[in-house]
Amino acid sequence: MDAITILVAEDDELVQATVEDALSESGFETTLAGSGEEAIALLKDGKSFRAIVTDVNLNDKLDGWEVARAARELDPTMPVIYMSGTHTDDWASKGVPKSIMLAKPFAPAQLVTATAQLLNASPLAE
Amino acid sequence: MDAITILVAEDDELVQATVEDALSESGFETTLAGSGEEAIALLKDGKSFRAIVTDVNLNDKLDGWEVARAARELDPTMPVIYMSGTHTDDWASKGVPKSIMLAKPFAPAQLVTATAQLLNASPLAE
Amino acid sequence: MDAITILVAEDDELVQATVEDALSESGFETTLAGSGEEAIALLKDGKSFRAIVTDVNLNDKLDGWEVARAARELDPTMPVIYMSGTHTDDWASKGVPKSIMLAKPFAPAQLVTATAQLLNASPLAE
Amino acid sequence: MDAITILVAEDDELVQATVEDALSESGFETTLAGSGEEAIALLKDGKSFRAIVTDVNLNDKLDGWEVARAARELDPTMPVIYMSGTHTDDWASKGVPKSIMLAKPFAPAQLVTATAQLLNASPLAE
Amino acid sequence: MDAITILVAEDDELVQATVEDALSESGFETTLAGSGEEAIALLKDGKSFRAIVTDVNLNDKLDGWEVARAARELDPTMPVIYMSGTHTDDWASKGVPKSIMLAKPFAPAQLVTATAQLLNASPLAE
Amino acid sequence: MDAITILVAEDDELVQATVEDALSESGFETTLAGSGEEAIALLKDGKSFRAIVTDVNLNDKLDGWEVARAARELDPTMPVIYMSGTHTDDWASKGVPKSIMLAKPFAPAQLVTATAQLLNASPLAE
Repeated sequence: MDAITILVAEDDELVQATVEDALSESGFETTLAGSGEEAIALLKDGKSFRAIVTDVNLNDKLDGWEVARAARELDPTMPVIYMSGTHTDDWASKGVPKSIMLAKPFAPAQLVTATAQLLNASPLAE
Repeated sequence: MDAITILVAEDDELVQATVEDALSESGFETTLAGSGEEAIALLKDGKSFRAIVTDVNLNDKLDGWEVARAARELDPTMPVIYMSGTHTDDWASKGVPKSIMLAKPFAPAQLVTATAQLLNASPLAE
Repeated sequence: MDAITILVAEDDELVQATVEDALSESGFETTLAGSGEEAIALLKDGKSFRAIVTDVNLNDKLDGWEVARAARELDPTMPVIYMSGTHTDDWASKGVPKSIMLAKPFAPAQLVTATAQLLNASPLAE
Repeated sequence: MDAITILVAEDDELVQATVEDALSESGFETTLAGSGEEAIALLKDGKSFRAIVTDVNLNDKLDGWEVARAARELDPTMPVIYMSGTHTDDWASKGVPKSIMLAKPFAPAQLVTATAQLLNASPLAE
Repeated sequence: MDAITILVAEDDELVQATVEDALSESGFETTLAGSGEEAIALLKDGKSFRAIVTDVNLNDKLDGWEVARAARELDPTMPVIYMSGTHTDDWASKGVPKSIMLAKPFAPAQLVTATAQLLNASPLAE
Repeated sequence: MDAITILVAEDDELVQATVEDALSESGFETTLAGSGEEAIALLKDGKSFRAIVTDVNLNDKLDGWEVARAARELDPTMPVIYMSGTHTDDWASKGVPKSIMLAKPFAPAQLVTATAQLLNASPLAE
């Protein structure tokens, strides 16, 4: 079967590795964006991502909240998973509907289950 | 029993009347804000609202998306119901988590059910 | 505001009256179909219904299960509410996804809440 | 159609009246129990209740938590709605699964929506 | 602990292998049916399956929609997962309630999460 | 990232091993309590558990129902997963709200998905 590619927006290399390992061991492909701007450029590039996993803090003008909003403007059904250690409380005011906030630290299984749950809830795939 | 007061942010007088009638006939009190700025001032005023119903379009610098975000910053568990005729598609990118978008036109029962459902889902009241 | 019209497929006049009263008192318009064939003809006629309420038993070649499937083929997001006294157990094998089965007898509020809940869960209106 | 009877366990006459009015105006019948013991006696009596609405505080040896557990032992699918002004926080440890806690004060529409929602979620009726 | 056996109805050997690997690595046993008729024969045989995973297209008189309906007639609580590349849109009209549609291609984790989610939602086991 | 520790209350060594393996392979740490009393002592000890997995039967004065209630009294948002072979029917009357009952036998993936689902639904972490 073809690849299911998840866009991962994360600037911390350690977290990048953890996230990529968890997703690839579960059968997902990943494309990495080291900044919010790179994430949005990739989204606009026409490549077909099935979900986005984004850190809230990105060493960048654009944070994860803005990346998720941009992703949803391009595709209103895009599954969104946020990761944050210190900004989980802001999810209620800054998150998008039907997204999941993973409070750091989290186990790899939480990320995989969150991604699969959101994908399975929107079966009207391309 | 005491009053359950819902903040209604709406600048159109006809819709104001419809919303207030629907909510008051179902046993809710309403406080009306004719603009986004008035809504946020009322929220900050310390008065205790149990939910907010807001039009997306407000003849104002602040739209309903911003009113809802401000409400959730003050109280992350605040039930939020949006109403819109033309901007329902923006809900996926601009709405807050666990909110409800009512597409205009809607029946009064939809507003009442939406309000009651969100209130009943967050039982950890004041 | 404009009308929200619900298609009601029911051949029993007493139930027709109960359903129409419950929905109209809650602010919905109703269009009545006395048979499954009439219901499907109305659905294909291009008139815009926001939900369908159908008895399972219709004195007809077509039953409510078939009416609902036809409605969902025309509009995959159409809210569907079934009513039945004796066939509620068949819902698990014959119902469509994300529909509601109302076991007769039911209170008018159950019908209104079911309709409003399903409408509020699919905000991407016409 | 036949009656849908809700068992209401409440010892405060003012709340009794509010609850009975809200439910009967929405098409439900109610049977009143003025104490937890009376509620459990009625449940065991073989009369068929479709849901139970119970205050947490009952001037009695038995509180609402115990009434709900007894109701669920007799019928594991029984819809349960609790009402409480001061014990809402105990719901997480003392409530039964898939029940709803209504924090007092609440609007009549909240009670009606809660009852209808739980009834509609368990269609495998009587 | 004893085996949890999932019935897999799939006629494509490559997909068979992917599905069986994903499920067995997650601790499930699988029984394979290469056609819809074989699937229904196995279901009627009295063997106890805890869930069914079925392709929609089966080189056969019976497709996955019919297999799922037959499974639900025998056991109304049977968890159902459909897989399809081209017929995902038909799920809204042909699927059974509370089922999950996996759009191909999907990652193994999506299948495992779907199966576990549905099993965990119906705790009233054999 | 730091550890996510799950409290496991289980007196059967075979099940202990199965549960610990499933959780640790998915990235969770586990702390084992061989009795209900030990589980409650650990909960009160101030150590920070992110979820509790408890057998219903514990060779002890305290069963899993009581352990879960004690855990929820200390932290009303604590995710709770019960495991039982013979008492799954009691969950409706003895379980706590928003918990999951795993009927034995279950596959490791069911436990991992249940744990991840409940953790992901309560993002307002420490």
